[in-house]
Amino acid sequence: MTSPVPMAEVWRGAFLESVHSGHAVICDASGGIVQAWGNPDAIILPRSSCKMLQALPLLDSGAADAAGLTPEDLAFSCASHQGAAIHTARAAAWLKGLDLSQDDLRCGTHDPYDTDTRDALLLSGETACQLHNNCSGKHCGFLTVNKHLKAGPEYVDPNHPLQLAVREAFEDVTGMDSPGFGIDGCSAPNFATSVHGLARAMAFFAASSEGGATVRERSAARLTRAMASFPELVAGEGRACTELMRAMGGKVAIKTGAEAVFVAILPDQKLGIALKITDGATRASECAIAALLVKLGVLNANHPATLKRLNAPITNRKGTVTGYLRSSNVF
Amino acid sequence: MTSPVPMAEVWRGAFLESVHSGHAVICDASGGIVQAWGNPDAIILPRSSCKMLQALPLLDSGAADAAGLTPEDLAFSCASHQGAAIHTARAAAWLKGLDLSQDDLRCGTHDPYDTDTRDALLLSGETACQLHNNCSGKHCGFLTVNKHLKAGPEYVDPNHPLQLAVREAFEDVTGMDSPGFGIDGCSAPNFATSVHGLARAMAFFAASSEGGATVRERSAARLTRAMASFPELVAGEGRACTELMRAMGGKVAIKTGAEAVFVAILPDQKLGIALKITDGATRASECAIAALLVKLGVLNANHPATLKRLNAPITNRKGTVTGYLRSSNVF
Repeated sequence: MTSPVPMAEVWRGAFLESVHSGHAVICDASGGIVQAWGNPDAIILPRSSCKMLQALPLLDSGAADAAGLTPEDLAFSCASHQGAAIHTARAAAWLKGLDLSQDDLRCGTHDPYDTDTRDALLLSGETACQLHNNCSGKHCGFLTVNKHLKAGPEYVDPNHPLQLAVREAFEDVTGMDSPGFGIDGCSAPNFATSVHGLARAMAFFAASSEGGATVRERSAARLTRAMASFPELVAGEGRACTELMRAMGGKVAIKTGAEAVFVAILPDQKLGIALKITDGATRASECAIAALLVKLGVLNANHPATLKRLNAPITNRKGTVTGYLRSSNVF
Repeated sequence: MTSPVPMAEVWRGAFLESVHSGHAVICDASGGIVQAWGNPDAIILPRSSCKMLQALPLLDSGAADAAGLTPEDLAFSCASHQGAAIHTARAAAWLKGLDLSQDDLRCGTHDPYDTDTRDALLLSGETACQLHNNCSGKHCGFLTVNKHLKAGPEYVDPNHPLQLAVREAFEDVTGMDSPGFGIDGCSAPNFATSVHGLARAMAFFAASSEGGATVRERSAARLTRAMASFPELVAGEGRACTELMRAMGGKVAIKTGAEAVFVAILPDQKLGIALKITDGATRASECAIAALLVKLGVLNANHPATLKRLNAPITNRKGTVTGYLRSSNVF
């Protein structure tokens, strides 16, 4: 087994203060490895990085079109959003269109990631609801499929028809049986795969076209285009997914997952990327995906959104630059 | 060079989702290594874990006694506090006693770590000031020495007499020349040392007594007792330093530092501990220090404060237990 390799470094003055290692794979349309770092066969939980896989049944089933979902809704179904008004309003409208309410969601509640929204709630005496959950878009998608399937309300049960459909799609596009699942922060099962498997899924998305031969290819292509076209619905202002997708001008779809997973879909190159920082640090997964996107020529190394992740100054309480977060230059 | 060893693991269901590695040393009063994991010679920035070293000139110089500081003040001078009322009130009173104000601090401002205090500030329309900075206690100590030295106001300059005194004390108790410094979050120089050097300093503190032969030994013993006696002033409610010191009943002093450093002073055993998780994750340094304190028989493995770090359930947005943060059982 190949050990994880250093991918991101935190420097303070002349000292390497912390270092993050991980596994990364670039895959082509054939599912083969173009280049890998660390162990491509390392088993990981993709967490939210696989939301576009979890959204496949929404399109494959015809449920999305039956419900009249827009490309914006499709982007939102793949989101880990920060509960800003553009996100909660979309979730509320979507549920209303299904004749459902936020009570039908099974994702649970947490304070919005967006500090301004959190503060505004506090100042107005309101509290967060399930609409603010970063996964509420995915769950709106789940409820849409569920209505189409006419299945029971506990749609996050791993044996629910919806989750069985998700698993089938997941295993199909990762090209391997999943060795099992963990329960995610939003209570849905999160299927395990290898870093290679996740990269293979991204390459499938990258190589799919909206005029493709299979329903699944067409679904994948529509989801990719939706994510790349509406970056602010996939995450939110200031966030890596949103800022880096904007910097790439709609040509590439990327997605973060908890515990430092990051994936990218590059349609023009028909390449997929998956990486996992083994310690789970998001600062490092953001740095590593930026380095890989620069390497592949789709992200400008000098774009402010890139520099913020790839060579980010660390400032202290008085604003003095005390160090840098840097790529380990393995890519 | 010995690689860092796995020290903490994040499990989700049946899957090892993330893992944290590090270096750790237990040192005895002679400065010798009792046991080590990883590389004892790894150079680290101790960050806030060395605040009791930075406080030595405060006592050595006689400044603390001249200013009539209490044991509570001494504990607070070693704090990374969360800006709750008990912390900011103490800082304000201390500065007033010196005929100074928060404008004389050079630590900078950040929102209080304590969420309730942050929310209360927001709701009252106030903003955080330098008193809320987690290092304001250390800086009150710095200003006290500075007044005693009759030195200039820019006391965080690495060449300021105060920082030269800190460096002398730091190198004395770590038993080695410092290879340099980084600038800390609070703008003070933070001197580098090895994990062994930091553990040696903790063993010096552990073996020192208030009736000791040297001024420095007496200073070290007073600081240790102050920290162990007033855990709530060293961090705050809910925090690892506070809860674990309380669980050990005032017999052991411990201190966290940014980027996953943790130290412990065990006076009864005359042992010192230092550890660094190489990826900088605090969840892991808290887990590892708890494991070491249990191993050495000073922390009850079944105490709620221990379980919260050593075998901590991870719950999702609906309160379901989805996994655990666990020690890697290397200790």
